[in-house]
Order: sequence, then C-alpha cells, then structure tokens
Amino acid sequence: MKLDLCPSPALYPYYKSDNDTVVVVDVFRASATICTMLNNGASAIIPVSNTDLAKQYKSKGYLVGAERNTKRCDFADFGNSPFDYTPEKVSGKEVVFTTTNGTRAIDVASNCKELLIGTFPNIDAVAEKCLKSAERVVILCAGWNNRMNIEDTLFGGAFAEKLMERSNIKFDSDTIRMTYELWLKVKNNLEEYLKLSDHYQRLIDNSAVSDASYCITPNSISIVPVYNKIDKKIY
Amino acid sequence: MKLDLCPSPALYPYYKSDNDTVVVVDVFRASATICTMLNNGASAIIPVSNTDLAKQYKSKGYLVGAERNTKRCDFADFGNSPFDYTPEKVSGKEVVFTTTNGTRAIDVASNCKELLIGTFPNIDAVAEKCLKSAERVVILCAGWNNRMNIEDTLFGGAFAEKLMERSNIKFDSDTIRMTYELWLKVKNNLEEYLKLSDHYQRLIDNSAVSDASYCITPNSISIVPVYNKIDKKIY
Repeated sequence: MKLDLCPSPALYPYYKSDNDTVVVVDVFRASATICTMLNNGASAIIPVSNTDLAKQYKSKGYLVGAERNTKRCDFADFGNSPFDYTPEKVSGKEVVFTTTNGTRAIDVASNCKELLIGTFPNIDAVAEKCLKSAERVVILCAGWNNRMNIEDTLFGGAFAEKLMERSNIKFDSDTIRMTYELWLKVKNNLEEYLKLSDHYQRLIDNSAVSDASYCITPNSISIVPVYNKIDKKIY
Repeated sequence: MKLDLCPSPALYPYYKSDNDTVVVVDVFRASATICTMLNNGASAIIPVSNTDLAKQYKSKGYLVGAERNTKRCDFADFGNSPFDYTPEKVSGKEVVFTTTNGTRAIDVASNCKELLIGTFPNIDAVAEKCLKSAERVVILCAGWNNRMNIEDTLFGGAFAEKLMERSNIKFDSDTIRMTYELWLKVKNNLEEYLKLSDHYQRLIDNSAVSDASYCITPNSISIVPVYNKIDKKIY
C-alpha cells in the first residue's frame, strides 16, 4: 500500500491520485469532535464550509456546531470542543458542523474514492480500515488557514508508524518521509513538543487545554467516520 | 528578526507579510546554478517562467538555460547543471533561465520587498545579508510541482541554525519549527538522508550525481543573487 501526506488543503490538487482513500485530520479539534459526536450517538454529521449555510440550517431547527478562530459562533448550539457534544444532546440527532479548517479540508477532498476522518483517538481503527481496502492513502492535514501545523503533521507520522507495524508501506513522496522522521524524533515527548505549536497557545488562550489532552490521547474511540458522497453527510 | 518557511510556491499567499525578505531556495539545482552563473561573471540572469518565452529570447540571440523535468530543453544552450555555466561561456553575458520549479518560485514572490536566491553554496553570505537588513525572512521552497521536497526544506532548517548562531530569531509559524527540528535530526547525515529523496533519484537517473554533491556543499560562493523588481533581472 502507498502512503502520502498532503500538508495543507490548498495543496491537495498536487497530492491526489485516482482511487485514493483520504484521511482528513484536524487534531485540534474537529476530527476528535466528529468522532465523539458519532460515538455519543449522533445519527449523522452534515459538514458545511461556511457559517451562512450553518445559520440557514439553524433556522430550520437543526442542531449546529460552529467555530471560527477557536471560538464558538454566537448563533450555534456548540463550538468545537468534543466535550460539548454529550449523548444527552446529540444522541439520535443530525448535527450540522462547520469549523475554521477541518470542514474546508473535507470539502476539497469530497470527490475522492473514500474519505475518512482520522485522529489520535481513533488511530488504530482508521489504520485497520485502511489496511483492509485502501490502495493509496493520503493523510490530508487541515492545517491552519492553509498553513501547515505541527499537530496534524505529527498525526501523519504516527499513522505511518501504525501502518508499518502491520504491513509493507511505500512512502509516496518526500512529504511523508519527512513527517515520519520528525515523528520518530518527538514521539516520546509528544505533549511537550505540541506545546510549542501555534494552536496549543490558542487553546490556552481560550481555556481549552483539557480538550488538547483528549485530542492527542490514542484509541479512546473505535469508530471511523466515513463521508458519504451521495448525501454529503458523515456516518 | 522573524523567520518563517513556506514549503511550496502554491502556499506563498498564506505565508507572506508586508516588508518580507524572501529567500528562494531550489537546492537541486536552480539556486546553485544561478549563484554559479554570477560567480563565473554573468552580468545578469533573466528568469522566465515558461519555455515559450525562453525560445523567444533565444531567437533574439540571448544565451538560454532551460530545463524541464531534470533534462535540458532541446532549444537551449544549457540545462540546469551548474557545471554547464563556465566563465568562458557566461562571463559578461546576460543569461535567460527557466527551470521546472525554481523560476516559478521567483515568479510568485516577485513583488516582495527583497528577493534573494539562497542555497547551501552561499548560505553564510545570505545569512549575513538578512541579519543586516531584514525584518522578517521567509524561506520560499521551490519544491517539486508544488509538492514539498526534502532538500529545500532542510536548507530552511540549516538556515535557521545559521541565523540563531548570530542573533535572536523568532520562529513565525509551526512550519519553520518542524523544519528546524528535522534539520537537527539529520544534519550529521545530510547526504545519506538526501539519498532517500525523490529528486536525488531523478539526478541519479539523469547522470547528475556530481551536481548533487556540489549543490549541498556549504559556502563555496560568497555572492547573494538579488532580484531587481524594476527590470526583472537577477544581479
């Protein structure tokens, strides 16, 4: 199986191939939040890329999660903290969801063969699913306003290691080679290294540090969210 | 002084700020080739982003260097090997130059405050020049068809280390933080690590391995090529 990493949604056209399985990762925090919603019983997630559309859904009575620049949007029921989406609130419900970076990444890759949501809390489940059926996997980092970030890139390195423990993997570009090398250097000090990142600082500024710890703890969830191209929902 | 790294020409809009000094790097091989032309007495370099324009210059009697996908274009006097541009051939002459990735990177950043060409053979000279006058430096990696590559990224890490030896530097994004960390891991094994890269393999396939060694040897040249916005030439 081939593996690559696309470090920014804006670079996706240069990394994609036919028949790709794309794993969208937004470590802080959209990926973990999507996994948590489904794990807590949400029936589906409707990702939307802009807040106007999210407001329209809200006016029709949908539950809406909406975040911009680490903060909950005023009109929304929830922000981007996984702890907002309790079973009491989301079980059996469809949730409309828009975030600064995560839903943009889903949008650019929405025509790929198979689109999954992956992050540390479901890393083993995603690896198992990819090993069963994927020809070529591209980890698509949500990044920050199309810039690279440390946390999504490092997930790529961790995911590469997971796959390599189980199968023969061919690295398909320099990007995934560098990512894996960096992961080997910092993996024993992950939380400390992540404290250097721009986004960790933003989470501190917005009193969301407990979210960060949850978002980088592996394997609390065994669900792999899958984007359905037909109805544009995540199940 | 602030320092950042833009890993692909396609991401430059997301990394630029006003008053930037941009250091365009294309380690294999355009940056070293530009430095070598000027060091061997070329009076100026005219970078052009497409081969049609290079052909027009050729028909007017200019010396032309043109490369696509590691090979010299048929119509051109030179390819992208620094060894092509001997003093006998280029001294006192203007040279028109187009390459797969390097001239594209110059093109996207051509409106910045100050655009320099940097690479391992002139790394100390570029560092000194930046420390004298720059407010914020962005290392702009030429990459490969807008994908990241190992060699340009690692130059960014090496350059960060050079600046940090001489001054207080503030890393301006996660990208330069990761680049510097990767550099620390592989710097004592640079040539071996670069052999893993996609482009090293292309150089082997095109019998250009001696170019690679020249391109990653530091400080053989003390010239810093500067792009002039008015006449669009490099001096």
